[in-house]
Amino acid sequence: MPRVVKHPEARKSELLDCAQALFFEHGYERTTINDIIKRAGISKGGFYHHFSSKEEILETLGVRLAQKAVERIKDVLEDPELDPLGRLNAFLTRSRRMKVEDASMLRATFDVLFRPENSVLYHRLNAALTRVMVPVLARIIAQGQAEGVFNTPDPTAMAEIVLQLGTSTQNAVARAIEAAGTPQAAAAADALEERLRLQGIAADRILGLPDGTLVFVEPGFVQAVMTAR
Amino acid sequence: MPRVVKHPEARKSELLDCAQALFFEHGYERTTINDIIKRAGISKGGFYHHFSSKEEILETLGVRLAQKAVERIKDVLEDPELDPLGRLNAFLTRSRRMKVEDASMLRATFDVLFRPENSVLYHRLNAALTRVMVPVLARIIAQGQAEGVFNTPDPTAMAEIVLQLGTSTQNAVARAIEAAGTPQAAAAADALEERLRLQGIAADRILGLPDGTLVFVEPGFVQAVMTAR
Repeated sequence: MPRVVKHPEARKSELLDCAQALFFEHGYERTTINDIIKRAGISKGGFYHHFSSKEEILETLGVRLAQKAVERIKDVLEDPELDPLGRLNAFLTRSRRMKVEDASMLRATFDVLFRPENSVLYHRLNAALTRVMVPVLARIIAQGQAEGVFNTPDPTAMAEIVLQLGTSTQNAVARAIEAAGTPQAAAAADALEERLRLQGIAADRILGLPDGTLVFVEPGFVQAVMTAR
Repeated sequence: MPRVVKHPEARKSELLDCAQALFFEHGYERTTINDIIKRAGISKGGFYHHFSSKEEILETLGVRLAQKAVERIKDVLEDPELDPLGRLNAFLTRSRRMKVEDASMLRATFDVLFRPENSVLYHRLNAALTRVMVPVLARIIAQGQAEGVFNTPDPTAMAEIVLQLGTSTQNAVARAIEAAGTPQAAAAADALEERLRLQGIAADRILGLPDGTLVFVEPGFVQAVMTAR
């Protein structure tokens, strides 16, 4: 077959697609640069034109996934009708809705990410997601601070800390996925919802809001993610 | 040399010592079970009598390190003179003092743990440390809750969340270590101290205490850790 000459950006994006598929199929550790080159049908020189290492692919992949997520909630971030608190809660509501919409893909992804051998993958993706989300959240907090709604000493640092709170629910998420379809499913879903509620209270307090102001979960949310096809 | 017959617990502890040394010398990923066996001078059967995998060694190592740390602050945890808030602050003060005492070892450890290829090592050790510390912290919080000093919805979950806050300073710690001995050292140390102060305020708020009640840092602490021999 004749080699099709592609635009460099299209080629880069295709490389990322191939790498992402391989990381999820075989795990990050077991995938080699040669595997990626082979699947993408590109030369070694072509690969190294875009990326210097497997690590760099992983970083770029994380940032790309996070940017796509921000893109999908852009309307909420830019809606002039919303005040800072309304914007933050709308942002949380939309994030939950995206999780229900993407549920089957998310379950498969988490199933892979939470395996001990993929711990690097999980933490790299999480770090990339945090890097993209911190300025988005910090902007909302700073605006709320200026309007006297939030009360927090440092919007950017506190945005980082609030986003980091998610890591503390990782175990509860892993248990809910593991229990799905077993008699323990309902109890594991309840435990995760309670954990998300407490995460919300921690976020409220860090931002100087009364307990229960930010809505991190509503009843049935975990069930909806676990059973959606 | 004749084979010395050792007590199984002494043998297990020796295996852990060898594994720990190898993980820090060559990295967790690059160390094989065979390397550990060879260094410890034990048979393959002897190894598998104690551990089923390299993963399990890592877990046990993390728990052992955490238990040693708790052992060193036992007097503070059991001092009947201290009220819950005094106990928590004494616990934080002693933790800082241990960090200054162990500074050169800690710097070498973090230098290894924060390398991207040792990310699994870092997160496993952190998880093991959290598992050991959560009940210790939860007991202090529950006591403070009973006495009306703390105000938090769930002592165990909030203990987990408060301990998890430490992960959000990981980048600032890495930068301070990297900058040590360079013209950027003072600025990086200040940035880390400010981050620790904010982490303290987040912990105060989660536990229902006024800002600045829990002391996570005092001026000069980072400098003391960075320059101690």
